[in-house]
Amino acid sequence: MSSPLPLTATPLTASEFAPFGDVIEPRATPTVMINQGLCARHSDLALLDFADGRAGISLFDAQARHLPHLVEMVERHPLGSQAFIPLGPWRCLVIVAADAGGVPDTPRAFVTEPGRAINLHRGVWHGVLTPLDTAGQFAVVDRIGTGPNLEEHWFERPYLIEALEV
Amino acid sequence: MSSPLPLTATPLTASEFAPFGDVIEPRATPTVMINQGLCARHSDLALLDFADGRAGISLFDAQARHLPHLVEMVERHPLGSQAFIPLGPWRCLVIVAADAGGVPDTPRAFVTEPGRAINLHRGVWHGVLTPLDTAGQFAVVDRIGTGPNLEEHWFERPYLIEALEV
Repeated sequence: MSSPLPLTATPLTASEFAPFGDVIEPRATPTVMINQGLCARHSDLALLDFADGRAGISLFDAQARHLPHLVEMVERHPLGSQAFIPLGPWRCLVIVAADAGGVPDTPRAFVTEPGRAINLHRGVWHGVLTPLDTAGQFAVVDRIGTGPNLEEHWFERPYLIEALEV
Repeated sequence: MSSPLPLTATPLTASEFAPFGDVIEPRATPTVMINQGLCARHSDLALLDFADGRAGISLFDAQARHLPHLVEMVERHPLGSQAFIPLGPWRCLVIVAADAGGVPDTPRAFVTEPGRAINLHRGVWHGVLTPLDTAGQFAVVDRIGTGPNLEEHWFERPYLIEALEV
Protein backbone atom coordinates (compact mmCIF):
# COMPACT_ATOMS: atom_id res chain seq x y z
CA MET A 1 0.00 0.00 0.00
CA SER A 2 1.25 3.48 -0.79
CA SER A 3 1.96 5.72 2.14
CA PRO A 4 -1.17 7.63 3.10
CA LEU A 5 -1.83 11.26 2.36
CA PRO A 6 -2.61 13.52 5.32
CA LEU A 7 -6.21 14.62 5.76
CA THR A 8 -7.27 17.24 8.30
CA ALA A 9 -10.62 17.01 10.13
CA THR A 10 -12.13 20.41 10.92
CA PRO A 11 -15.25 21.26 12.97
CA LEU A 12 -18.43 20.59 11.02
CA THR A 13 -20.35 23.68 9.96
CA ALA A 14 -23.58 23.83 7.99
CA SER A 15 -22.16 26.17 5.38
CA GLU A 16 -19.09 24.09 4.62
CA PHE A 17 -21.15 20.91 4.62
CA ALA A 18 -23.90 22.28 2.37
CA PRO A 19 -22.53 20.79 -0.88
CA PHE A 20 -22.70 17.34 0.71
CA GLY A 21 -25.67 17.35 3.05
CA ASP A 22 -27.40 18.86 6.06
CA VAL A 23 -26.23 19.50 9.60
CA ILE A 24 -29.36 18.76 11.65
CA GLU A 25 -29.20 21.54 14.21
CA PRO A 26 -31.73 23.96 15.71
CA ARG A 27 -32.64 27.05 13.73
CA ALA A 28 -31.83 30.48 15.17
CA THR A 29 -35.48 30.74 16.19
CA PRO A 30 -37.87 27.78 16.55
CA THR A 31 -40.39 27.17 13.79
CA VAL A 32 -43.16 26.95 16.41
CA MET A 33 -43.58 26.48 20.15
CA ILE A 34 -45.75 23.48 21.06
CA ASN A 35 -46.96 21.67 24.19
CA GLN A 36 -48.11 24.79 25.99
CA GLY A 37 -44.79 26.49 25.41
CA LEU A 38 -42.68 23.68 26.87
CA CYS A 39 -41.24 22.43 23.58
CA ALA A 40 -39.58 24.24 20.68
CA ARG A 41 -40.04 22.68 17.25
CA HIS A 42 -37.40 23.30 14.56
CA SER A 43 -39.01 21.91 11.43
CA ASP A 44 -37.75 20.15 8.35
CA LEU A 45 -33.99 20.26 8.71
CA ALA A 46 -32.93 17.61 6.21
CA LEU A 47 -33.49 16.95 2.51
CA LEU A 48 -34.87 13.41 2.37
CA ASP A 49 -34.57 12.28 -1.24
CA PHE A 50 -35.38 8.80 -2.48
CA ALA A 51 -35.38 7.75 -6.12
CA ASP A 52 -37.70 4.87 -5.34
CA GLY A 53 -38.70 2.75 -2.35
CA ARG A 54 -39.64 4.70 0.77
CA ALA A 55 -38.18 6.33 3.88
CA GLY A 56 -37.57 4.09 6.88
CA ILE A 57 -35.91 4.23 10.30
CA SER A 58 -33.19 1.73 11.11
CA LEU A 59 -30.68 1.33 13.92
CA PHE A 60 -26.94 1.07 13.31
CA ASP A 61 -24.72 -0.31 16.09
CA ALA A 62 -21.25 0.92 15.18
CA GLN A 63 -18.00 -0.02 16.85
CA ALA A 64 -15.71 2.69 18.16
CA ARG A 65 -13.18 4.28 15.85
CA HIS A 66 -10.00 5.94 17.00
CA LEU A 67 -7.39 8.31 15.67
CA PRO A 68 -5.31 7.98 13.65
CA HIS A 69 -8.08 6.96 11.22
CA LEU A 70 -7.17 5.53 7.83
CA VAL A 71 -9.55 6.36 4.97
CA GLU A 72 -9.08 3.66 2.39
CA MET A 73 -12.54 3.75 0.88
CA VAL A 74 -15.62 5.87 0.37
CA GLU A 75 -19.04 4.76 -0.78
CA ARG A 76 -22.23 6.29 -2.12
CA HIS A 77 -25.90 5.40 -2.39
CA PRO A 78 -27.31 6.54 -5.75
CA LEU A 79 -30.92 5.88 -4.78
CA GLY A 80 -31.31 7.73 -1.50
CA SER A 81 -30.22 10.20 1.14
CA GLN A 82 -29.08 8.91 4.53
CA ALA A 83 -29.48 10.67 7.88
CA PHE A 84 -27.40 9.60 10.90
CA ILE A 85 -28.86 10.48 14.29
CA PRO A 86 -26.63 9.57 17.27
CA LEU A 87 -28.52 8.26 20.31
CA GLY A 88 -25.91 9.69 22.63
CA PRO A 89 -23.44 12.53 23.04
CA TRP A 90 -20.52 11.28 21.03
CA ARG A 91 -18.60 12.92 18.18
CA CYS A 92 -18.15 11.44 14.72
CA LEU A 93 -15.86 11.91 11.82
CA VAL A 94 -17.76 12.83 8.66
CA ILE A 95 -15.72 12.14 5.54
CA VAL A 96 -17.19 13.24 2.23
CA ALA A 97 -15.99 13.89 -1.31
CA ALA A 98 -17.32 15.68 -4.35
CA ASP A 99 -17.80 13.57 -7.45
CA ALA A 100 -15.33 14.02 -10.28
CA GLY A 101 -16.61 12.12 -13.28
CA GLY A 102 -17.82 9.06 -11.41
CA VAL A 103 -15.01 8.82 -8.89
CA PRO A 104 -14.48 10.78 -5.68
CA ASP A 105 -12.41 13.93 -5.70
CA THR A 106 -10.02 14.56 -2.79
CA PRO A 107 -12.04 13.89 0.37
CA ARG A 108 -12.84 16.38 3.10
CA ALA A 109 -13.11 15.46 6.77
CA PHE A 110 -15.21 17.07 9.48
CA VAL A 111 -15.76 16.32 13.14
CA THR A 112 -19.22 16.79 14.64
CA GLU A 113 -20.19 18.35 17.92
CA PRO A 114 -21.25 15.74 20.52
CA GLY A 115 -24.72 14.46 19.68
CA ARG A 116 -25.03 16.23 16.34
CA ALA A 117 -27.00 14.49 13.57
CA ILE A 118 -26.28 14.87 9.86
CA ASN A 119 -27.98 13.97 6.59
CA LEU A 120 -25.99 12.94 3.52
CA HIS A 121 -27.60 13.94 0.28
CA ARG A 122 -28.40 11.28 -2.29
CA GLY A 123 -25.36 10.04 -4.14
CA VAL A 124 -22.72 11.83 -2.05
CA TRP A 125 -19.43 9.95 -1.60
CA HIS A 126 -18.80 9.36 2.11
CA GLY A 127 -16.73 7.36 4.54
CA VAL A 128 -18.07 4.76 6.92
CA LEU A 129 -19.77 5.59 10.21
CA THR A 130 -17.13 6.61 12.74
CA PRO A 131 -18.18 7.34 16.32
CA LEU A 132 -14.99 8.50 18.01
CA ASP A 133 -13.60 6.61 20.99
CA THR A 134 -16.90 4.95 21.90
CA ALA A 135 -19.25 2.47 20.32
CA GLY A 136 -22.39 4.24 19.21
CA GLN A 137 -25.97 3.44 18.28
CA PHE A 138 -27.55 5.61 15.59
CA ALA A 139 -31.05 5.95 14.22
CA VAL A 140 -30.70 6.13 10.46
CA VAL A 141 -33.34 7.52 8.12
CA ASP A 142 -32.69 6.16 4.67
CA ARG A 143 -34.19 4.36 1.70
CA ILE A 144 -35.95 1.07 2.26
CA GLY A 145 -36.15 -0.67 -1.07
CA THR A 146 -34.77 -3.42 -3.22
CA GLY A 147 -32.01 -3.42 -5.79
CA PRO A 148 -28.37 -2.36 -5.54
CA ASN A 149 -27.81 0.99 -3.84
CA LEU A 150 -24.13 0.90 -2.96
CA GLU A 151 -21.03 1.91 -4.88
CA GLU A 152 -17.60 1.68 -3.28
CA HIS A 153 -14.40 3.40 -4.31
CA TRP A 154 -11.08 2.25 -2.90
CA PHE A 155 -8.36 4.87 -3.07
CA GLU A 156 -5.09 3.93 -4.73
CA ARG A 157 -3.42 5.98 -2.07
CA PRO A 158 -5.38 6.18 1.19
CA TYR A 159 -5.77 9.17 3.47
CA LEU A 160 -4.85 9.39 7.13
CA ILE A 161 -6.56 11.58 9.72
CA GLU A 162 -4.07 11.92 12.52
CA ALA A 163 -5.68 14.52 14.72
CA LEU A 164 -8.60 16.92 14.88
CA GLU A 165 -8.07 20.57 14.07
CA VAL A 166 -9.88 22.59 16.67
CA MET B 1 -60.88 20.60 38.36
CA SER B 2 -61.95 17.13 39.46
CA SER B 3 -59.46 15.16 41.48
CA PRO B 4 -57.20 13.16 39.18
CA LEU B 5 -57.42 9.42 38.57
CA PRO B 6 -54.27 7.39 39.21
CA LEU B 7 -52.34 6.15 36.18
CA THR B 8 -49.46 3.70 36.46
CA ALA B 9 -46.44 3.89 34.15
CA THR B 10 -44.95 0.50 33.35
CA PRO B 11 -41.76 -0.33 31.41
CA LEU B 12 -42.28 0.01 27.67
CA THR B 13 -42.29 -3.25 25.73
CA ALA B 14 -42.76 -3.71 21.98
CA SER B 15 -45.60 -6.17 22.41
CA GLU B 16 -47.66 -4.00 24.75
CA PHE B 17 -46.98 -0.94 22.63
CA ALA B 18 -47.83 -2.62 19.31
CA PRO B 19 -51.43 -1.32 19.15
CA PHE B 20 -50.10 2.22 19.37
CA GLY B 21 -46.76 2.25 17.60
CA ASP B 22 -43.24 0.89 17.35
CA VAL B 23 -40.45 0.59 19.88
CA ILE B 24 -37.34 1.33 17.81
CA GLU B 25 -34.93 -1.23 19.21
CA PRO B 26 -32.41 -3.63 17.70
CA ARG B 27 -33.69 -6.92 16.31
CA ALA B 28 -32.54 -10.18 17.90
CA THR B 29 -30.10 -10.55 15.01
CA PRO B 30 -28.94 -7.70 12.75
CA THR B 31 -30.45 -7.43 9.28
CA VAL B 32 -26.96 -7.15 7.81
CA MET B 33 -23.40 -6.41 8.88
CA ILE B 34 -21.84 -3.46 7.04
CA ASN B 35 -18.59 -1.47 7.04
CA GLN B 36 -16.32 -4.51 6.96
CA GLY B 37 -18.09 -6.08 9.91
CA LEU B 38 -17.78 -3.06 12.20
CA CYS B 39 -21.44 -2.00 12.09
CA ALA B 40 -24.67 -3.94 12.57
CA ARG B 41 -27.68 -2.66 10.64
CA HIS B 42 -31.18 -3.37 12.01
CA SER B 43 -33.44 -2.31 9.18
CA ASP B 44 -36.86 -0.74 8.92
CA LEU B 45 -38.05 -0.63 12.52
CA ALA B 46 -40.92 1.87 12.28
CA LEU B 47 -44.08 2.22 10.22
CA LEU B 48 -43.81 5.65 8.61
CA ASP B 49 -47.29 6.51 7.35
CA PHE B 50 -48.27 9.84 5.83
CA ALA B 51 -51.63 10.60 4.27
CA ASP B 52 -50.11 13.41 2.26
CA GLY B 53 -47.11 15.71 2.38
CA ARG B 54 -43.78 13.96 2.95
CA ALA B 55 -41.46 12.66 5.66
CA GLY B 56 -39.10 15.15 7.26
CA ILE B 57 -36.65 15.35 10.14
CA SER B 58 -37.15 18.06 12.76
CA LEU B 59 -35.62 18.80 16.16
CA PHE B 60 -37.71 19.20 19.30
CA ASP B 61 -36.17 20.90 22.33
CA ALA B 62 -38.35 19.79 25.22
CA GLN B 63 -38.20 21.02 28.78
CA ALA B 64 -37.80 18.54 31.62
CA ARG B 65 -40.88 16.90 33.13
CA HIS B 66 -41.03 15.49 36.62
CA LEU B 67 -43.19 13.13 38.64
CA PRO B 68 -45.91 13.41 39.69
CA HIS B 69 -47.02 14.10 36.10
CA LEU B 70 -50.55 15.30 35.44
CA VAL B 71 -52.16 14.14 32.19
CA GLU B 72 -54.85 16.66 31.37
CA MET B 73 -54.79 16.29 27.60
CA VAL B 74 -53.90 13.97 24.76
CA GLU B 75 -53.60 14.81 21.08
CA ARG B 76 -53.44 13.03 17.76
CA HIS B 77 -52.24 13.69 14.24
CA PRO B 78 -54.66 12.25 11.70
CA LEU B 79 -52.33 12.78 8.74
CA GLY B 80 -49.12 11.19 9.86
CA SER B 81 -47.02 8.99 12.10
CA GLN B 82 -44.46 10.59 14.41
CA ALA B 83 -41.16 9.09 15.54
CA PHE B 84 -39.30 10.49 18.57
CA ILE B 85 -35.56 9.81 18.67
CA PRO B 86 -33.81 11.07 21.82
CA LEU B 87 -30.33 12.50 21.24
CA GLY B 88 -29.22 11.41 24.68
CA PRO B 89 -29.68 8.73 27.32
CA TRP B 90 -32.79 9.97 29.08
CA ARG B 91 -36.07 8.22 29.79
CA CYS B 92 -39.48 9.43 28.70
CA LEU B 93 -43.05 8.85 29.64
CA VAL B 94 -45.10 7.58 26.71
CA ILE B 95 -48.80 8.14 27.25
CA VAL B 96 -51.18 6.70 24.66
CA ALA B 97 -54.84 5.83 24.38
CA ALA B 98 -56.98 3.75 22.06
CA ASP B 99 -59.72 5.57 20.21
CA ALA B 100 -63.29 5.03 21.34
CA GLY B 101 -65.58 6.62 18.82
CA GLY B 102 -63.57 9.76 18.24
CA VAL B 103 -62.41 10.32 21.81
CA PRO B 104 -59.59 8.66 23.75
CA ASP B 105 -60.30 5.62 25.86
CA THR B 106 -58.59 5.34 29.28
CA PRO B 107 -54.92 6.14 28.65
CA ARG B 108 -51.97 3.86 29.23
CA ALA B 109 -48.59 5.06 30.39
CA PHE B 110 -45.18 3.57 29.70
CA VAL B 111 -41.66 4.58 30.61
CA THR B 112 -38.86 4.04 28.11
CA GLU B 113 -35.39 2.71 28.67
CA PRO B 114 -32.75 5.46 28.55
CA GLY B 115 -32.15 6.49 24.94
CA ARG B 116 -34.97 4.45 23.45
CA ALA B 117 -36.78 5.85 20.39
CA ILE B 118 -40.42 5.22 19.58
CA ASN B 119 -42.76 5.77 16.64
CA LEU B 120 -46.41 6.66 17.14
CA HIS B 121 -48.67 5.32 14.43
CA ARG B 122 -50.81 7.75 12.46
CA GLY B 123 -53.83 8.98 14.39
CA VAL B 124 -52.90 7.49 17.79
CA TRP B 125 -53.92 9.56 20.83
CA HIS B 126 -50.83 10.46 22.84
CA GLY B 127 -49.56 12.75 25.56
CA VAL B 128 -46.98 15.47 25.08
CA LEU B 129 -43.25 14.81 24.92
CA THR B 130 -41.96 14.13 28.45
CA PRO B 131 -38.25 13.64 28.99
CA LEU B 132 -37.94 12.78 32.68
CA ASP B 133 -35.90 14.96 35.00
CA THR B 134 -33.82 16.52 32.23
CA ALA B 135 -34.41 18.75 29.25
CA GLY B 136 -34.04 16.75 26.07
CA GLN B 137 -33.46 17.27 22.38
CA PHE B 138 -35.17 14.83 20.02
CA ALA B 139 -34.97 14.21 16.31
CA VAL B 140 -38.53 13.75 15.12
CA VAL B 141 -39.52 12.05 11.87
CA ASP B 142 -42.99 13.16 10.97
CA ARG B 143 -45.16 14.66 8.26
CA ILE B 144 -44.11 17.88 6.62
CA GLY B 145 -47.16 19.35 4.95
CA THR B 146 -49.83 21.98 5.12
CA GLY B 147 -53.30 21.93 6.61
CA PRO B 148 -54.51 21.05 10.10
CA ASN B 149 -53.02 17.88 11.55
CA LEU B 150 -53.72 18.23 15.28
CA GLU B 151 -56.68 17.23 17.40
CA GLU B 152 -56.63 17.76 21.14
CA HIS B 153 -58.78 16.12 23.79
CA TRP B 154 -58.90 17.56 27.30
CA PHE B 155 -60.04 15.05 29.93
CA GLU B 156 -62.95 16.03 32.16
CA ARG B 157 -61.10 14.27 34.91
CA PRO B 158 -57.30 14.22 34.45
CA TYR B 159 -54.90 11.40 35.25
CA LEU B 160 -51.93 11.52 37.57
CA ILE B 161 -48.76 9.48 37.22
CA GLU B 162 -47.22 9.48 40.67
CA ALA B 163 -44.41 6.97 40.29
CA LEU B 164 -42.93 4.46 37.89
CA GLU B 165 -43.67 0.80 38.33
CA VAL B 166 -40.42 -1.08 37.79
